[in-house]
Amino acid sequence: MSVMNPLITLTTDFGAGSAYVAALKGAILTVNPEARLVDLSHAIGPQDLIHAALFLTEAVPYYPAGTLHLVVVDPGVGTERGLLYVEVDDQRLLVPDNGLWTPLAQGRRIEQVRRLTEARYWRPAVSPTFHGRDILAPVAGHLSRGLDPAALGPLVQQSVELRLPEPSRTRDGLRGEVLWVDCFGNLITNIRESPLVDAVTIRVGDRVISRRVRTYGEAAPGELVFLISSGGWLEVAVVQGNAAERLGARRGAPVEIVFSDASQKRR
Amino acid sequence: MSVMNPLITLTTDFGAGSAYVAALKGAILTVNPEARLVDLSHAIGPQDLIHAALFLTEAVPYYPAGTLHLVVVDPGVGTERGLLYVEVDDQRLLVPDNGLWTPLAQGRRIEQVRRLTEARYWRPAVSPTFHGRDILAPVAGHLSRGLDPAALGPLVQQSVELRLPEPSRTRDGLRGEVLWVDCFGNLITNIRESPLVDAVTIRVGDRVISRRVRTYGEAAPGELVFLISSGGWLEVAVVQGNAAERLGARRGAPVEIVFSDASQKRR
Amino acid sequence: MSVMNPLITLTTDFGAGSAYVAALKGAILTVNPEARLVDLSHAIGPQDLIHAALFLTEAVPYYPAGTLHLVVVDPGVGTERGLLYVEVDDQRLLVPDNGLWTPLAQGRRIEQVRRLTEARYWRPAVSPTFHGRDILAPVAGHLSRGLDPAALGPLVQQSVELRLPEPSRTRDGLRGEVLWVDCFGNLITNIRESPLVDAVTIRVGDRVISRRVRTYGEAAPGELVFLISSGGWLEVAVVQGNAAERLGARRGAPVEIVFSDASQKRR
Repeated sequence: MSVMNPLITLTTDFGAGSAYVAALKGAILTVNPEARLVDLSHAIGPQDLIHAALFLTEAVPYYPAGTLHLVVVDPGVGTERGLLYVEVDDQRLLVPDNGLWTPLAQGRRIEQVRRLTEARYWRPAVSPTFHGRDILAPVAGHLSRGLDPAALGPLVQQSVELRLPEPSRTRDGLRGEVLWVDCFGNLITNIRESPLVDAVTIRVGDRVISRRVRTYGEAAPGELVFLISSGGWLEVAVVQGNAAERLGARRGAPVEIVFSDASQKRR
Repeated sequence: MSVMNPLITLTTDFGAGSAYVAALKGAILTVNPEARLVDLSHAIGPQDLIHAALFLTEAVPYYPAGTLHLVVVDPGVGTERGLLYVEVDDQRLLVPDNGLWTPLAQGRRIEQVRRLTEARYWRPAVSPTFHGRDILAPVAGHLSRGLDPAALGPLVQQSVELRLPEPSRTRDGLRGEVLWVDCFGNLITNIRESPLVDAVTIRVGDRVISRRVRTYGEAAPGELVFLISSGGWLEVAVVQGNAAERLGARRGAPVEIVFSDASQKRR
Repeated sequence: MSVMNPLITLTTDFGAGSAYVAALKGAILTVNPEARLVDLSHAIGPQDLIHAALFLTEAVPYYPAGTLHLVVVDPGVGTERGLLYVEVDDQRLLVPDNGLWTPLAQGRRIEQVRRLTEARYWRPAVSPTFHGRDILAPVAGHLSRGLDPAALGPLVQQSVELRLPEPSRTRDGLRGEVLWVDCFGNLITNIRESPLVDAVTIRVGDRVISRRVRTYGEAAPGELVFLISSGGWLEVAVVQGNAAERLGARRGAPVEIVFSDASQKRR
């Protein structure tokens, strides 16, 4: 997909105080001063590929066709790991080859995957610790000006795959885990919407939660509830409160759902 | 006010690490790829309407006429609370109907208030927990492309009102409170500029502060001072230091001002 | 350099939750609604000129010619300290006259330095505590529309200079310090790349580090290494870990490098 599109989103684990984000933006704008940069997040956990992967599944599908997503969460920077240009459905990504984009691609169409090899589109001097600034950023600038992705390097068949942790069956339901705690203290789990149809209770640690709601305001302030998150996952929340604090639950904490007897029998 | 204006500001309580901000931006850009997004803050306290309201009074009036301000601090999401399009003076807002915009409107002209009812301008599937992404964002996209606000839904006469806490009279002055602590540790209070003309001393907890300055640099480093904030409120500061830490004062901490005898007699 | 260029970058110590950033942006856009704002960072340490200065050296050189950089880290706001328009190589800055831009200018060409005196380009009412919003922001708006900088005020020959702390010679090497800890816990020091050619070991506190790498992934996870940072400084890191935590080292912590005997002899 060779398109002239000024929209470039930025997702990194660079945090708030460093100049890494600033340099990255400058390196894009130097190639294409007309690029329109959209900050998605610079607060991905340091080198946290699972966080990055989950983030992309919840963000990228909302963007207009042809948007270019630059993602720099890159523990392998400077080693032999590749850098990729990827098209998933109508979205375009520039990413390290560490799998962070592959959960997004599940159930979607992968149009092409290329390895960046053509150094003429990079900054002349490439730091071994900052390929985001010196390779991905200028390449993003060129793509946004309409460069044909085929110019960047060869198609690859093999690339690293990353899987979000998957829930497992238990005797009477499923066991998953907390994938992410949002700033409200809501627990986002790795259990998808569909099995929840039959769920009657949820367990987080030794707490059993049986109040199921469509939205927070259906229950009283302070009540523990479970619901479908806006991204389609099982979510555990305290109405106008903080479930993570209440339950002492962090990322990785086990979460179980128990099906109703009826649903057991159907299975 | 039907205007084609690409400027859309964003104010939320979504924090830094979640994909909520990213999805919100994508949902706007999907409707209007030409929209120019301006991040105001995504660090409003979770579901903190007072913070959001104070924030808007200090930010919105600085924007050019016709700017559209999208504000998502929405504890009532998914319940029967409405979503509003509001015009205050020459500014336009999209907000939940929880009153967060009403302190901004005090002393200003409310041109119109509409309830969003026309689902044709929303995303096809609306999550009960993320109306920001699924209703407000696409509506913002349409408005920025010049959609007549009258198309969004009916005018309403009644909407929720929120008031910032107001100071009360004491025998010899006023008693207010800390509304906000900024990142320098300066205490911004709910006492406006005008009564301060006659103030001679300030009390925060058991500390009496009598040094009044126009700006920080007038006193010595480390000195406790009071002044008029850049937003027109009584502010308590430590020169090149942190007043919140020094005084152990947080939001809600009582602050008293004592008038001079002379001003007492005039009253 | 009188140029019409919509790119204005923003660097402040305003933090995430206040309306200061929002008001600053509005004040620019009110003068030039076509300005394209690029957030560099709003997490410079409160009133931390060294942090701001280091940040600018690592960010500004990556921007296209004619970019305007607005920097508000301004402990002297409202006092007699000046506000400056500065051209360094092909970059333009608006800064308080506190020296934060001078480390950036080292080894670069200073084209002009002007003091802002022409109030016609300011907001009509200037708060003594927020010159960023009331003076620098509208001036940035005017410059981005092509205003000749000569209209802003007179050239000045004298301005405040700030120096980053410099390393000193020891018997067998150099002694410097940690200038900055990034969000990965990497220690960025004030020792430049060139003397490192001969370094054989590094000392941070009582820890001796002798593994030198080009990039993190060359050593095993958990290993302490030193390398050249992407900004050209000596950097101390833990592979896939946090060096600041491991070494208990913060900004200002002493860092020594020891030269090899051979290099000693050459000297």
